[in-house]
Amino acid sequence: MKVARFSHDGAIDFGILDEDEQELVVLKADPLFAGLDTTGERVPLASAKLLAPVIPRSKVVAVGRNYRAHAAEFGNDVPAEPMLFFKPNTSVIGPGDTIVRPRGSEQVDFEGELAVVIGAVARNVRASDAHAVIFGYTVGNDVSARDWQRSDGQWARAKGFDTSCPLGPFVETDFDVAGSRLRSSVNGELKQDAPFTDMVHDVATVIEYASAVFTLLPGDVILTGTPAGVGPIVAGDRVDIEIDGIGTLSNPVA
Amino acid sequence: MKVARFSHDGAIDFGILDEDEQELVVLKADPLFAGLDTTGERVPLASAKLLAPVIPRSKVVAVGRNYRAHAAEFGNDVPAEPMLFFKPNTSVIGPGDTIVRPRGSEQVDFEGELAVVIGAVARNVRASDAHAVIFGYTVGNDVSARDWQRSDGQWARAKGFDTSCPLGPFVETDFDVAGSRLRSSVNGELKQDAPFTDMVHDVATVIEYASAVFTLLPGDVILTGTPAGVGPIVAGDRVDIEIDGIGTLSNPVA
Repeated sequence: MKVARFSHDGAIDFGILDEDEQELVVLKADPLFAGLDTTGERVPLASAKLLAPVIPRSKVVAVGRNYRAHAAEFGNDVPAEPMLFFKPNTSVIGPGDTIVRPRGSEQVDFEGELAVVIGAVARNVRASDAHAVIFGYTVGNDVSARDWQRSDGQWARAKGFDTSCPLGPFVETDFDVAGSRLRSSVNGELKQDAPFTDMVHDVATVIEYASAVFTLLPGDVILTGTPAGVGPIVAGDRVDIEIDGIGTLSNPVA
Repeated sequence: MKVARFSHDGAIDFGILDEDEQELVVLKADPLFAGLDTTGERVPLASAKLLAPVIPRSKVVAVGRNYRAHAAEFGNDVPAEPMLFFKPNTSVIGPGDTIVRPRGSEQVDFEGELAVVIGAVARNVRASDAHAVIFGYTVGNDVSARDWQRSDGQWARAKGFDTSCPLGPFVETDFDVAGSRLRSSVNGELKQDAPFTDMVHDVATVIEYASAVFTLLPGDVILTGTPAGVGPIVAGDRVDIEIDGIGTLSNPVA
Protein backbone atom coordinates (compact mmCIF):
# COMPACT_ATOMS: atom_id res chain seq x y z
CA MET A 1 0.00 0.00 0.00
CA LYS A 2 1.34 3.41 -0.96
CA VAL A 3 0.44 6.27 1.42
CA ALA A 4 0.72 9.91 0.31
CA ARG A 5 0.33 13.26 2.00
CA PHE A 6 -0.89 15.84 -0.43
CA SER A 7 -2.57 19.17 -0.97
CA HIS A 8 -5.54 19.70 -3.25
CA ASP A 9 -8.10 22.48 -3.44
CA GLY A 10 -6.49 24.24 -0.47
CA ALA A 11 -6.69 21.23 1.87
CA ILE A 12 -3.93 18.91 3.09
CA ASP A 13 -4.86 15.23 3.38
CA PHE A 14 -3.43 11.77 3.58
CA GLY A 15 -4.43 9.21 0.97
CA ILE A 16 -3.81 5.72 -0.34
CA LEU A 17 -2.74 5.40 -3.95
CA ASP A 18 -5.03 3.39 -6.20
CA GLU A 19 -2.40 2.49 -8.78
CA ASP A 20 -4.87 1.21 -11.39
CA GLU A 21 -7.02 4.33 -11.35
CA GLN A 22 -4.13 6.70 -10.54
CA GLU A 23 -6.27 8.21 -7.81
CA LEU A 24 -5.70 8.97 -4.16
CA VAL A 25 -8.28 7.51 -1.78
CA VAL A 26 -8.59 10.18 0.91
CA LEU A 27 -8.06 9.13 4.54
CA LYS A 28 -9.85 10.73 7.48
CA ALA A 29 -6.57 11.50 9.25
CA ASP A 30 -2.87 10.72 9.51
CA PRO A 31 -2.64 6.91 9.21
CA LEU A 32 0.29 6.88 11.65
CA PHE A 33 -2.10 7.89 14.42
CA ALA A 34 -5.65 7.28 13.21
CA GLY A 35 -5.78 4.14 11.08
CA LEU A 36 -7.03 3.78 7.54
CA ASP A 37 -10.63 5.02 7.62
CA THR A 38 -11.47 6.74 4.36
CA THR A 39 -13.67 9.74 3.73
CA GLY A 40 -15.08 8.26 0.52
CA GLU A 41 -13.48 11.03 -1.53
CA ARG A 42 -11.04 10.30 -4.35
CA VAL A 43 -8.59 12.78 -5.83
CA PRO A 44 -6.91 12.22 -9.20
CA LEU A 45 -3.16 11.86 -8.64
CA ALA A 46 -2.60 14.37 -11.42
CA SER A 47 -4.49 17.10 -9.57
CA ALA A 48 -2.76 16.54 -6.21
CA LYS A 49 0.47 18.19 -5.12
CA LEU A 50 2.38 15.49 -3.24
CA LEU A 51 4.01 16.64 0.02
CA ALA A 52 6.60 14.97 2.21
CA PRO A 53 4.61 11.84 3.16
CA VAL A 54 5.64 12.18 6.80
CA ILE A 55 6.69 15.05 9.07
CA PRO A 56 8.89 13.71 11.85
CA ARG A 57 7.47 14.72 15.25
CA SER A 58 10.88 14.34 16.76
CA LYS A 59 13.83 13.50 14.55
CA VAL A 60 15.42 12.08 11.48
CA VAL A 61 18.11 9.63 12.56
CA ALA A 62 20.63 9.12 9.78
CA VAL A 63 23.37 6.53 9.41
CA GLY A 64 26.78 7.57 8.07
CA ARG A 65 29.10 5.37 6.03
CA ASN A 66 26.73 2.42 5.81
CA TYR A 67 27.87 1.23 2.37
CA ARG A 68 31.45 0.03 1.97
CA ALA A 69 31.96 1.59 -1.46
CA HIS A 70 30.64 4.98 -0.31
CA ALA A 71 32.85 5.05 2.78
CA ALA A 72 35.80 4.21 0.53
CA GLU A 73 35.07 7.05 -1.91
CA PHE A 74 35.96 9.50 0.90
CA GLY A 75 38.80 7.35 2.22
CA ASN A 76 36.85 6.25 5.30
CA ASP A 77 36.56 2.85 6.90
CA VAL A 78 33.17 1.37 7.65
CA PRO A 79 32.44 1.89 11.34
CA ALA A 80 32.01 -1.25 13.44
CA GLU A 81 28.77 0.18 14.85
CA PRO A 82 26.19 2.32 13.03
CA MET A 83 27.37 5.94 12.95
CA LEU A 84 24.32 8.02 13.83
CA PHE A 85 23.56 11.70 13.39
CA PHE A 86 20.42 13.84 13.40
CA LYS A 87 18.65 15.93 10.80
CA PRO A 88 15.92 18.21 12.21
CA ASN A 89 12.32 18.08 11.00
CA THR A 90 12.77 21.62 9.67
CA SER A 91 15.05 20.18 6.98
CA VAL A 92 12.25 18.07 5.44
CA ILE A 93 10.79 18.97 2.03
CA GLY A 94 8.58 17.00 -0.32
CA PRO A 95 8.69 15.72 -3.88
CA GLY A 96 9.18 18.52 -6.39
CA ASP A 97 10.21 21.01 -3.72
CA THR A 98 13.41 22.92 -4.36
CA ILE A 99 16.69 22.04 -2.66
CA VAL A 100 18.17 25.44 -1.77
CA ARG A 101 21.94 25.32 -1.37
CA PRO A 102 22.77 27.27 1.79
CA ARG A 103 24.55 30.57 1.49
CA GLY A 104 28.25 30.21 2.26
CA SER A 105 28.64 26.57 1.28
CA GLU A 106 30.72 25.90 -1.83
CA GLN A 107 29.80 22.26 -2.39
CA VAL A 108 26.43 20.63 -1.85
CA ASP A 109 26.07 16.92 -2.64
CA PHE A 110 23.01 14.70 -3.10
CA GLU A 111 22.90 11.35 -1.28
CA GLY A 112 20.10 8.97 -2.27
CA GLU A 113 18.90 6.78 0.60
CA LEU A 114 16.22 4.33 1.71
CA ALA A 115 14.16 6.01 4.45
CA VAL A 116 12.37 4.01 7.14
CA VAL A 117 9.22 5.55 8.66
CA ILE A 118 8.71 4.52 12.28
CA GLY A 119 5.13 3.61 13.18
CA ALA A 120 5.18 3.05 16.94
CA VAL A 121 6.85 4.31 20.07
CA ALA A 122 10.08 2.31 20.01
CA ARG A 123 12.54 1.85 22.86
CA ASN A 124 14.97 -1.05 23.27
CA VAL A 125 13.59 -2.87 20.25
CA ARG A 126 15.46 -6.07 19.35
CA ALA A 127 16.46 -6.51 15.72
CA SER A 128 14.20 -9.53 15.49
CA ASP A 129 11.21 -7.36 16.50
CA ALA A 130 12.12 -4.29 14.43
CA HIS A 131 9.51 -5.03 11.75
CA ALA A 132 6.79 -4.37 14.32
CA VAL A 133 7.76 -0.69 14.74
CA ILE A 134 8.15 0.06 11.01
CA PHE A 135 5.21 1.78 9.33
CA GLY A 136 6.78 1.75 5.89
CA TYR A 137 9.54 2.96 3.61
CA THR A 138 10.06 5.99 1.44
CA VAL A 139 12.82 7.60 -0.60
CA GLY A 140 15.16 10.12 1.04
CA ASN A 141 17.94 12.44 0.00
CA ASP A 142 20.52 13.25 2.69
CA VAL A 143 21.61 16.49 1.04
CA SER A 144 25.00 17.49 2.47
CA ALA A 145 27.11 20.65 2.42
CA ARG A 146 30.37 18.79 1.95
CA ASP A 147 32.68 21.69 2.79
CA TRP A 148 30.86 22.35 6.07
CA GLN A 149 30.87 18.64 6.82
CA ARG A 150 34.68 18.75 6.60
CA SER A 151 35.16 22.03 8.48
CA ASP A 152 32.56 21.85 11.25
CA GLY A 153 33.37 18.56 12.94
CA GLN A 154 29.75 18.08 13.98
CA TRP A 155 27.41 17.75 10.99
CA ALA A 156 24.44 19.79 12.24
CA ARG A 157 24.85 22.64 9.73
CA ALA A 158 26.20 20.45 6.91
CA LYS A 159 23.30 18.00 7.00
CA GLY A 160 20.63 19.94 8.86
CA PHE A 161 20.09 23.07 6.80
CA ASP A 162 16.60 23.87 5.55
CA THR A 163 15.65 21.75 2.49
CA SER A 164 18.41 19.19 3.17
CA CYS A 165 15.98 16.30 3.67
CA PRO A 166 13.70 15.63 0.69
CA LEU A 167 11.32 12.71 1.39
CA GLY A 168 8.73 11.00 -0.79
CA PRO A 169 6.81 10.52 -2.98
CA PHE A 170 5.00 7.69 -1.10
CA VAL A 171 5.39 5.58 2.00
CA GLU A 172 5.18 1.96 0.88
CA THR A 173 3.96 -0.23 3.72
CA ASP A 174 4.62 -3.54 1.90
CA PHE A 175 8.23 -3.38 0.85
CA ASP A 176 10.89 -6.02 0.32
CA VAL A 177 14.15 -4.28 1.24
CA ALA A 178 16.38 -7.14 0.15
CA GLY A 179 14.68 -7.39 -3.23
CA SER A 180 14.97 -3.70 -4.08
CA ARG A 181 17.67 -1.26 -5.13
CA LEU A 182 18.28 2.47 -5.43
CA ARG A 183 19.23 4.50 -8.47
CA SER A 184 20.08 8.20 -8.34
CA SER A 185 20.56 10.44 -11.29
CA VAL A 186 21.35 14.10 -11.80
CA ASN A 187 19.84 15.65 -14.91
CA GLY A 188 19.08 12.16 -16.18
CA GLU A 189 22.64 10.87 -15.81
CA LEU A 190 22.90 7.77 -13.58
CA LYS A 191 25.10 8.38 -10.52
CA GLN A 192 24.17 5.73 -7.93
CA ASP A 193 22.94 2.18 -8.51
CA ALA A 194 23.09 -0.28 -5.63
CA PRO A 195 21.01 -3.00 -3.98
CA PHE A 196 20.06 -2.54 -0.33
CA THR A 197 21.78 -5.82 0.43
CA ASP A 198 25.00 -3.77 0.18
CA MET A 199 24.17 -2.01 3.48
CA VAL A 200 26.71 -2.76 6.20
CA HIS A 201 24.21 -2.44 9.06
CA ASP A 202 20.74 -3.51 7.94
CA VAL A 203 17.49 -1.79 8.90
CA ALA A 204 16.72 -4.06 11.84
CA THR A 205 20.21 -3.67 13.27
CA VAL A 206 20.01 0.12 13.02
CA ILE A 207 16.62 0.18 14.77
CA GLU A 208 17.96 -1.98 17.60
CA TYR A 209 21.05 0.21 17.95
CA ALA A 210 19.21 3.55 17.81
CA SER A 211 16.27 2.54 20.00
CA ALA A 212 18.68 1.38 22.71
CA VAL A 213 19.66 5.02 23.13
CA PHE A 214 16.75 7.21 22.09
CA THR A 215 13.04 6.63 22.02
CA LEU A 216 11.78 6.61 18.43
CA LEU A 217 8.34 8.16 17.93
CA PRO A 218 5.73 7.46 15.25
CA GLY A 219 6.69 9.61 12.30
CA ASP A 220 10.40 9.58 13.07
CA VAL A 221 12.48 8.69 10.03
CA ILE A 222 15.65 6.66 9.73
CA LEU A 223 17.87 7.40 6.74
CA THR A 224 19.86 4.24 6.16
CA GLY A 225 22.95 5.63 4.45
CA THR A 226 23.94 6.27 0.87
CA PRO A 227 25.77 4.04 -1.61
CA ALA A 228 28.75 5.11 -3.70
CA GLY A 229 28.33 7.71 -6.43
CA VAL A 230 27.37 10.85 -4.52
CA GLY A 231 28.36 14.12 -6.07
CA PRO A 232 27.74 17.85 -6.23
CA ILE A 233 24.54 19.53 -7.36
CA VAL A 234 24.27 23.10 -8.57
CA ALA A 235 21.50 25.54 -9.37
CA GLY A 236 19.34 24.33 -12.23
CA ASP A 237 20.04 20.64 -11.62
CA ARG A 238 17.37 18.04 -11.01
CA VAL A 239 18.01 15.06 -8.73
CA ASP A 240 15.97 11.89 -9.21
CA ILE A 241 16.22 9.11 -6.66
CA GLU A 242 14.34 5.97 -7.59
CA ILE A 243 13.67 2.97 -5.39
CA ASP A 244 12.09 -0.07 -7.00
CA GLY A 245 8.69 -0.64 -5.41
CA ILE A 246 8.33 2.87 -3.97
CA GLY A 247 8.81 5.42 -6.73
CA THR A 248 10.99 8.34 -7.71
CA LEU A 249 11.79 11.34 -5.53
CA SER A 250 12.58 14.22 -7.83
CA ASN A 251 13.78 17.66 -6.70
CA PRO A 252 15.11 20.70 -8.51
CA VAL A 253 18.10 22.60 -7.12
CA ALA A 254 18.42 26.35 -6.61
CA MET B 1 7.79 36.73 34.56
CA LYS B 2 8.42 33.06 35.30
CA VAL B 3 6.44 30.57 33.22
CA ALA B 4 6.03 26.96 34.32
CA ARG B 5 4.55 23.84 32.80
CA PHE B 6 3.21 21.56 35.50
CA SER B 7 0.92 18.73 36.40
CA HIS B 8 -1.62 18.86 39.21
CA ASP B 9 -4.70 16.78 39.93
CA GLY B 10 -4.14 14.78 36.75
CA ALA B 11 -4.03 17.79 34.43
CA ILE B 12 -1.07 19.40 32.66
CA ASP B 13 -1.13 23.19 32.47
CA PHE B 14 1.02 26.22 31.92
CA GLY B 15 1.16 28.89 34.61
CA ILE B 16 2.84 32.10 35.72
CA LEU B 17 4.61 32.07 39.07
CA ASP B 18 3.31 34.51 41.67
CA GLU B 19 6.52 34.70 43.70
CA ASP B 20 4.94 36.47 46.67
CA GLU B 21 2.14 33.94 47.11
CA GLN B 22 4.16 30.98 45.82
CA GLU B 23 1.26 30.09 43.56
CA LEU B 24 0.94 29.29 39.89
CA VAL B 25 -1.60 31.40 38.00
CA VAL B 26 -3.00 28.95 35.47
CA LEU B 27 -2.92 29.93 31.78
CA LYS B 28 -5.57 28.88 29.28
CA ALA B 29 -2.95 27.39 26.93
CA ASP B 30 0.71 27.25 25.96
CA PRO B 31 1.90 30.88 26.14
CA LEU B 32 4.24 30.28 23.20
CA PHE B 33 1.22 29.93 20.96
CA ALA B 34 -1.77 31.36 22.78
CA GLY B 35 -0.75 34.38 24.84
CA LEU B 36 -1.21 34.94 28.55
CA ASP B 37 -4.95 34.62 29.16
CA THR B 38 -5.56 33.05 32.56
CA THR B 39 -8.27 30.65 33.64
CA GLY B 40 -8.68 32.37 37.02
CA GLU B 41 -7.44 29.24 38.80
CA ARG B 42 -4.42 29.29 41.12
CA VAL B 43 -2.40 26.25 42.16
CA PRO B 44 -0.04 26.31 45.15
CA LEU B 45 3.51 25.78 43.90
CA ALA B 46 3.97 23.14 46.58
CA SER B 47 1.17 20.99 45.16
CA ALA B 48 2.33 21.20 41.53
CA LYS B 49 4.81 18.84 39.89
CA LEU B 50 6.94 21.05 37.64
CA LEU B 51 7.62 19.62 34.17
CA ALA B 52 10.07 20.66 31.50
CA PRO B 53 8.76 24.20 30.85
CA VAL B 54 8.98 23.71 27.09
CA ILE B 55 8.87 20.74 24.72
CA PRO B 56 10.77 21.59 21.56
CA ARG B 57 8.55 21.03 18.51
CA SER B 58 11.59 20.61 16.37
CA LYS B 59 15.02 20.67 17.99
CA VAL B 60 17.46 21.58 20.68
CA VAL B 61 20.41 23.33 19.05
CA ALA B 62 23.46 23.17 21.30
CA VAL B 63 26.75 25.01 21.10
CA GLY B 64 30.00 23.15 21.81
CA ARG B 65 33.14 24.69 23.31
CA ASN B 66 31.62 28.10 23.93
CA TYR B 67 33.63 28.93 27.07
CA ARG B 68 37.39 29.23 26.77
CA ALA B 69 38.15 27.51 30.09
CA HIS B 70 35.87 24.55 29.28
CA ALA B 71 37.39 24.04 25.83
CA ALA B 72 40.81 24.10 27.49
CA GLU B 73 39.90 21.45 30.07
CA PHE B 74 39.62 18.93 27.21
CA GLY B 75 42.60 20.39 25.34
CA ASN B 76 40.44 21.98 22.64
CA ASP B 77 40.68 25.39 21.03
CA VAL B 78 37.66 27.66 20.91
CA PRO B 79 36.15 27.39 17.42
CA ALA B 80 36.09 30.59 15.38
CA GLU B 81 32.41 30.02 14.62
CA PRO B 82 29.78 28.51 16.93
CA MET B 83 30.04 24.72 16.87
CA LEU B 84 26.48 23.43 16.62
CA PHE B 85 24.96 20.04 17.29
CA PHE B 86 21.44 18.71 17.91
CA LYS B 87 19.75 17.06 20.83
CA PRO B 88 16.34 15.53 20.01
CA ASN B 89 13.16 16.49 21.84
CA THR B 90 12.99 12.91 23.15
CA SER B 91 16.02 13.71 25.35
CA VAL B 92 14.14 16.39 27.33
CA ILE B 93 13.15 15.78 30.96
CA GLY B 94 11.95 18.16 33.64
CA PRO B 95 13.04 19.30 37.11
CA GLY B 96 13.31 16.41 39.53
CA ASP B 97 13.19 13.80 36.77
CA THR B 98 15.89 11.16 36.84
CA ILE B 99 18.92 11.27 34.54
CA VAL B 100 19.35 7.65 33.48
CA ARG B 101 22.90 6.87 32.39
CA PRO B 102 22.64 4.86 29.17
CA ARG B 103 23.61 1.20 29.21
CA GLY B 104 27.07 0.69 27.75
CA SER B 105 28.51 4.10 28.56
CA GLU B 106 31.23 4.18 31.20
CA GLN B 107 31.31 7.94 31.86
CA VAL B 108 28.39 10.33 31.91
CA ASP B 109 29.08 14.01 32.67
CA PHE B 110 26.78 16.87 33.65
CA GLU B 111 27.14 20.20 31.81
CA GLY B 112 25.23 23.17 33.24
CA GLU B 113 24.07 25.65 30.60
CA LEU B 114 21.91 28.68 29.96
CA ALA B 115 19.02 27.62 27.68
CA VAL B 116 17.28 30.04 25.32
CA VAL B 117 13.64 29.35 24.45
CA ILE B 118 12.72 30.54 20.96
CA GLY B 119 9.37 32.32 20.72
CA ALA B 120 8.85 32.95 17.02
CA VAL B 121 9.57 31.40 13.64
CA ALA B 122 13.13 32.55 13.06
CA ARG B 123 15.04 32.45 9.80
CA ASN B 124 17.98 34.69 8.88
CA VAL B 125 17.67 36.74 12.07
CA ARG B 126 20.38 39.36 12.54
CA ALA B 127 22.10 39.46 15.91
CA SER B 128 20.73 42.94 16.50
CA ASP B 129 17.18 41.57 16.09
CA ALA B 130 17.69 38.33 18.04
CA HIS B 131 15.88 39.60 21.13
CA ALA B 132 12.65 39.69 19.12
CA VAL B 133 12.62 35.89 18.62
CA ILE B 134 13.50 34.98 22.22
CA PHE B 135 10.61 33.97 24.45
CA GLY B 136 12.75 33.57 27.54
CA TYR B 137 15.50 31.67 29.29
CA THR B 138 15.67 28.54 31.39
CA VAL B 139 18.31 26.27 32.92
CA GLY B 140 19.64 23.31 30.93
CA ASN B 141 21.92 20.36 31.48
CA ASP B 142 23.68 19.01 28.39
CA VAL B 143 24.26 15.57 29.88
CA SER B 144 26.98 13.83 27.87
CA ALA B 145 28.24 10.25 27.59
CA ARG B 146 31.86 11.28 27.40
CA ASP B 147 33.22 7.93 26.22
CA TRP B 148 30.72 7.79 23.35
CA GLN B 149 31.48 11.40 22.52
CA ARG B 150 35.12 10.40 22.02
CA SER B 151 34.46 7.13 20.18
CA ASP B 152 31.50 7.98 17.93
CA GLY B 153 32.75 11.03 16.03
CA GLN B 154 29.22 12.38 15.69
CA TRP B 155 27.63 13.17 19.05
CA ALA B 156 24.08 11.96 18.43
CA ARG B 157 24.25 9.04 20.88
CA ALA B 158 26.58 10.77 23.34
CA LYS B 159 24.39 13.85 23.75
CA GLY B 160 21.04 12.65 22.45
CA PHE B 161 20.16 9.69 24.64
CA ASP B 162 16.87 9.72 26.54
CA THR B 163 17.05 11.93 29.69
CA SER B 164 20.17 13.77 28.45
CA CYS B 165 18.45 17.18 28.35
CA PRO B 166 16.98 18.30 31.69
CA LEU B 167 15.28 21.71 31.36
CA GLY B 168 13.62 23.95 33.96
CA PRO B 169 12.30 24.82 36.45
CA PHE B 170 10.90 28.03 34.87
CA VAL B 171 11.21 30.07 31.71
CA GLU B 172 12.10 33.61 32.77
CA THR B 173 10.93 36.09 30.15
CA ASP B 174 12.69 39.11 31.73
CA PHE B 175 16.29 38.07 32.11
CA ASP B 176 19.56 39.98 32.08
CA VAL B 177 22.08 37.53 30.61
CA ALA B 178 25.10 39.75 31.21
CA GLY B 179 24.16 40.31 34.84
CA SER B 180 23.70 36.64 35.70
CA ARG B 181 25.87 33.61 36.28
CA LEU B 182 25.63 29.83 36.54
CA ARG B 183 26.61 27.55 39.39
CA SER B 184 26.53 23.77 39.18
CA SER B 185 27.00 21.41 42.06
CA VAL B 186 26.95 17.65 42.49
CA ASN B 187 25.72 16.43 45.87
CA GLY B 188 26.06 19.99 47.15
CA GLU B 189 29.69 20.39 46.09
CA LEU B 190 30.26 23.38 43.80
CA LYS B 191 31.66 22.34 40.40
CA GLN B 192 30.92 25.20 37.99
CA ASP B 193 30.70 28.93 38.70
CA ALA B 194 30.92 31.35 35.79
CA PRO B 195 29.27 34.52 34.51
CA PHE B 196 27.58 34.38 31.09
CA THR B 197 29.86 37.18 29.95
CA ASP B 198 32.49 34.41 29.63
CA MET B 199 30.67 32.98 26.60
CA VAL B 200 32.77 33.16 23.43
CA HIS B 201 29.77 33.52 21.09
CA ASP B 202 26.92 35.35 22.81
CA VAL B 203 23.24 34.46 22.51
CA ALA B 204 22.51 36.94 19.72
CA THR B 205 25.48 35.74 17.67
CA VAL B 206 24.42 32.11 18.03
CA ILE B 207 20.85 32.92 16.95
CA GLU B 208 22.14 34.76 13.87
CA TYR B 209 24.48 31.90 13.00
CA ALA B 210 21.93 29.10 13.57
CA SER B 211 18.97 30.85 11.95
CA ALA B 212 21.04 31.45 8.81
CA VAL B 213 21.02 27.69 8.28
CA PHE B 214 17.92 26.23 9.90
CA THR B 215 14.53 27.69 10.65
CA LEU B 216 14.00 27.93 14.40
CA LEU B 217 10.45 27.24 15.56
CA PRO B 218 8.61 28.48 18.67
CA GLY B 219 9.59 26.10 21.43
CA ASP B 220 12.98 25.26 19.99
CA VAL B 221 15.74 25.53 22.57
CA ILE B 222 19.31 26.74 22.23
CA LEU B 223 21.81 25.42 24.76
CA THR B 224 24.57 28.01 24.90
CA GLY B 225 27.51 25.87 26.04
CA THR B 226 28.96 24.93 29.38
CA PRO B 227 31.70 26.61 31.44
CA ALA B 228 34.66 24.79 32.97
CA GLY B 229 34.15 22.33 35.79
CA VAL B 230 32.13 19.55 34.17
CA GLY B 231 32.58 16.08 35.55
CA PRO B 232 31.12 12.62 35.91
CA ILE B 233 27.89 11.73 37.66
CA VAL B 234 27.00 8.30 38.97
CA ALA B 235 23.92 6.57 40.32
CA GLY B 236 22.69 8.20 43.52
CA ASP B 237 24.12 11.63 42.70
CA ARG B 238 22.06 14.81 42.55
CA VAL B 239 22.98 17.59 40.11
CA ASP B 240 21.88 21.15 40.89
CA ILE B 241 22.31 23.85 38.28
CA GLU B 242 21.44 27.33 39.48
CA ILE B 243 21.11 30.45 37.37
CA ASP B 244 20.63 33.75 39.18
CA GLY B 245 17.25 35.13 38.24
CA ILE B 246 15.79 31.86 36.95
CA GLY B 247 16.14 29.21 39.64
CA THR B 248 17.70 25.83 40.26
CA LEU B 249 17.34 22.79 38.04
CA SER B 250 17.82 19.73 40.21
CA ASN B 251 17.95 16.13 38.96
CA PRO B 252 18.82 12.81 40.56
CA VAL B 253 20.97 10.30 38.68
CA ALA B 254 20.27 6.59 38.22
